Amino acid sequence: MKFTKMHGLGNDFIVVNGFKEDVRIIFEKAEKICDRHAGVGADGILLVLPSDKCDLKMRIINSDGSEADMCGNGIRCFARYAFSRGLVNRMSITVETPAGVIKPEIIIKDDLIESVRVDMGCYSLRKKDIPVTGNPDEEAVDLEISVDDRVFKFTGVSMGNPHCVIFVDDVEGFPVERFGPAIERHPLFPKRTNVEFVEVKGQNRLKMRVWERGAGLTMACGTGACASAVAAYKKGIVGPKVTVSLPGGDLFIEIEDNGRVYMTGPAVEVYSGYIDLNTL
Amino acid sequence: MKFTKMHGLGNDFIVVNGFKEDVRIIFEKAEKICDRHAGVGADGILLVLPSDKCDLKMRIINSDGSEADMCGNGIRCFARYAFSRGLVNRMSITVETPAGVIKPEIIIKDDLIESVRVDMGCYSLRKKDIPVTGNPDEEAVDLEISVDDRVFKFTGVSMGNPHCVIFVDDVEGFPVERFGPAIERHPLFPKRTNVEFVEVKGQNRLKMRVWERGAGLTMACGTGACASAVAAYKKGIVGPKVTVSLPGGDLFIEIEDNGRVYMTGPAVEVYSGYIDLNTL
Repeated sequence: MKFTKMHGLGNDFIVVNGFKEDVRIIFEKAEKICDRHAGVGADGILLVLPSDKCDLKMRIINSDGSEADMCGNGIRCFARYAFSRGLVNRMSITVETPAGVIKPEIIIKDDLIESVRVDMGCYSLRKKDIPVTGNPDEEAVDLEISVDDRVFKFTGVSMGNPHCVIFVDDVEGFPVERFGPAIERHPLFPKRTNVEFVEVKGQNRLKMRVWERGAGLTMACGTGACASAVAAYKKGIVGPKVTVSLPGGDLFIEIEDNGRVYMTGPAVEVYSGYIDLNTL
Repeated sequence: MKFTKMHGLGNDFIVVNGFKEDVRIIFEKAEKICDRHAGVGADGILLVLPSDKCDLKMRIINSDGSEADMCGNGIRCFARYAFSRGLVNRMSITVETPAGVIKPEIIIKDDLIESVRVDMGCYSLRKKDIPVTGNPDEEAVDLEISVDDRVFKFTGVSMGNPHCVIFVDDVEGFPVERFGPAIERHPLFPKRTNVEFVEVKGQNRLKMRVWERGAGLTMACGTGACASAVAAYKKGIVGPKVTVSLPGGDLFIEIEDNGRVYMTGPAVEVYSGYIDLNTL
């Protein structure tokens, strides 16, 4: 199997041309392929596949072999790979994913690919969309959640997946590992939730650390950055264009009046490789 | 830079042909190359180089950019790489390292490379050789060491590097992370020490977990397996041929009457790759 190793803000992927490689054996051996010592090592595998209705189709295999619907850092890597390999020849492409059609756009600066901008769809604050328990049509803004001996104010946001955004004074010193897992599985969130701890760093600047549903502490979560920007925007803390600093780097978030959210960030090609899956 | 990713018991290396690649830039960028998210990812880099006095010379760059003298898992990968790439054409080769000349031997079974046997040199139990404080010519057998509220019996072994071997009843449940760091830096060991916690599993079988000097908890330590076998042999617990089970797999240790120790274990080729170091 030929592959390309890429990352977006440290969230790293093995990108594979599914037009040429045997997808079935990749699914079978995904866990071994993603092993960081005895395999290639990655957070996941991105399969570039043909699509009936879009330019391309993306499938994401997690490092445990399960399949993911969408990934903000992954789609940027996917778009850069597809564009730089000539699998598409336009800057704006359509990608079929299990979470719907995603439209990434290649941003060029000085003749080089600088970043990828992604239409992340529309946010929702409605409890039924996130979901959060309670009146389904109510917005989940400034609610309270009790964990251990602490009560936090949070805003619930859906970016297609659930988010619980909590503003804190010092995000660097905040014990994310302690409260993240408890909030992820709190009865308020029937489908569990991603948890973002956010510090306001300036008029249009947030600093965020995230506890990802099913993944724990990670270096970057694209939908989490969007949800944090949305929550801060709705509370009037920031404007509609926000830079969100994550441990892995910065994402630039734009919120449109109609609720649509765009995320712009880097996608880096690290190396190319070949692995014999028969002997893995 | 072309490279081959290999591992011995999960201890993984980027192996590079130093006859062809620019060694200077590899040293410069080693930390970035070894980064598991934004780089290739590995415990270290093995450079295959020409030697004046041996078949080949090995240099090991740790993932923090520093240089290591020797590595039991690394030398097996080195030998397999050199043999399978035709850089040497004998099964027994001589390798120049900062720790002296090492002589690995390729073991073939059913026409395939099965493992690599390495002459690890002679052990010493003398305090001055390890070093352990106290009478320099005394053997460091069955000494006591106090850590926090506990007193452990240990045997100090030099395999070129220092080891502190402690026998325990249940190595799986033993808090290696708690006592390892404290023993590593205990004043008894002026050059710090690797710490092996060893459970006797049978007549010639040991189970070991290791706290490596400067690296912490690792899946496998070749010299640590040798030191554990030596300590158990000297105490009459096992014979001169011992299988040591580590979290990453098994090593087979042979101790000769003259004090020479041989280690046999696997070396696995995982994949090959190419990375542009100018853009890393």
